[in-house]
Amino acid sequence: MAQGRFITFEGGEGAGKSTQLKRLAARLEVGGREVVATREPGGSPGAESIRELVLKGAADRWSPVTETLLMYAARRDHVERVIRPAVGRGAWVVCDRFADSTRAYQGAAGGTDPGLIAALETFTLEETRPDLTLIFDLPVHVGLERAHARAGSEMRFESKGQAFHERLREGFLAIARGEPQRCAVIDATGSLEEVEARVWTAVEDRLLVHG
Amino acid sequence: MAQGRFITFEGGEGAGKSTQLKRLAARLEVGGREVVATREPGGSPGAESIRELVLKGAADRWSPVTETLLMYAARRDHVERVIRPAVGRGAWVVCDRFADSTRAYQGAAGGTDPGLIAALETFTLEETRPDLTLIFDLPVHVGLERAHARAGSEMRFESKGQAFHERLREGFLAIARGEPQRCAVIDATGSLEEVEARVWTAVEDRLLVHG
Repeated sequence: MAQGRFITFEGGEGAGKSTQLKRLAARLEVGGREVVATREPGGSPGAESIRELVLKGAADRWSPVTETLLMYAARRDHVERVIRPAVGRGAWVVCDRFADSTRAYQGAAGGTDPGLIAALETFTLEETRPDLTLIFDLPVHVGLERAHARAGSEMRFESKGQAFHERLREGFLAIARGEPQRCAVIDATGSLEEVEARVWTAVEDRLLVHG
Repeated sequence: MAQGRFITFEGGEGAGKSTQLKRLAARLEVGGREVVATREPGGSPGAESIRELVLKGAADRWSPVTETLLMYAARRDHVERVIRPAVGRGAWVVCDRFADSTRAYQGAAGGTDPGLIAALETFTLEETRPDLTLIFDLPVHVGLERAHARAGSEMRFESKGQAFHERLREGFLAIARGEPQRCAVIDATGSLEEVEARVWTAVEDRLLVHG
């Protein structure tokens, strides 16, 4: 049985990750693969109940360190109960946000000690790391405009202000520079079809042709 | 202004910690001190909402690692918002369970990697460590009988079986052996008055006479 793959979608608000994730999942399924489309925080019943705690309430309800620990509690549950079993049976897992979101949101933008985040990755992810991470990048004002236009959007992070979102964008780009083997930066401006083509090229190049 | 003190009460189920904590708090207040009596998991509004998640549901709802992360999320909130400010203004904080419960329950008894627990202590407690930890010790069967007799007791940990509780007891005793300066083992057998006298002797010896 073929080993599965684990692809994560990362980036700031309004970058179109969720839409593109659905399109990539559909395209991979055409190839006859089992695809598991999931998201964080959440993705398993326990993690979804933690998600409720994290995303609801005032912007300062949780400090960045507490938020980091809640995110990792949810992530560990998701990894143990969904991601690791799926990859183990040969599925392709596509996940909307993963560990890089903690590095960027709670770390680069929130100020959580990188030593805590590194220890959490080591001890709670263990060998479960993405084979490919797509980092959706676009100017902050474009992303926030798109996010505000969305109905029912969870606003806790969106309400943190322009400077927070600039640190966030730079945080994601720094991750991509630091791990170019794992990460591909996707230009998220332009039409859905244009972005979809960029995503597919990255997946083909990294996992289908040379993978 | 005098620096406050931070005293933690630790041990397995049914050891009488909560009752003894109230008695110690009352006795310390007679001396004119501000006393903050609190408990974990919980002790702050955010931490109490995490407590709900951790203690409800089936015994295997959370893996030991996920549980460790939830406990530390609650602990960080409690430390930031209650314990650290109180000690900083000169209060005596008495807390029913703290970091040693994670070492014993999720670590010694649950199998969580001690490296994860050590990293969490370093990065989330920082300088906020107990001045004195009272470890309530009694035979496992006595503690479980007392706990079962209690009305409205939260049963998630009590339902984990005799072997778990034996590992737990040994875990707490190992912490006391490893940090004798911080920890005092309290024989929790006998009458409430007998145990209260042992607690007071420990507090006097460690914090009032020689402190």
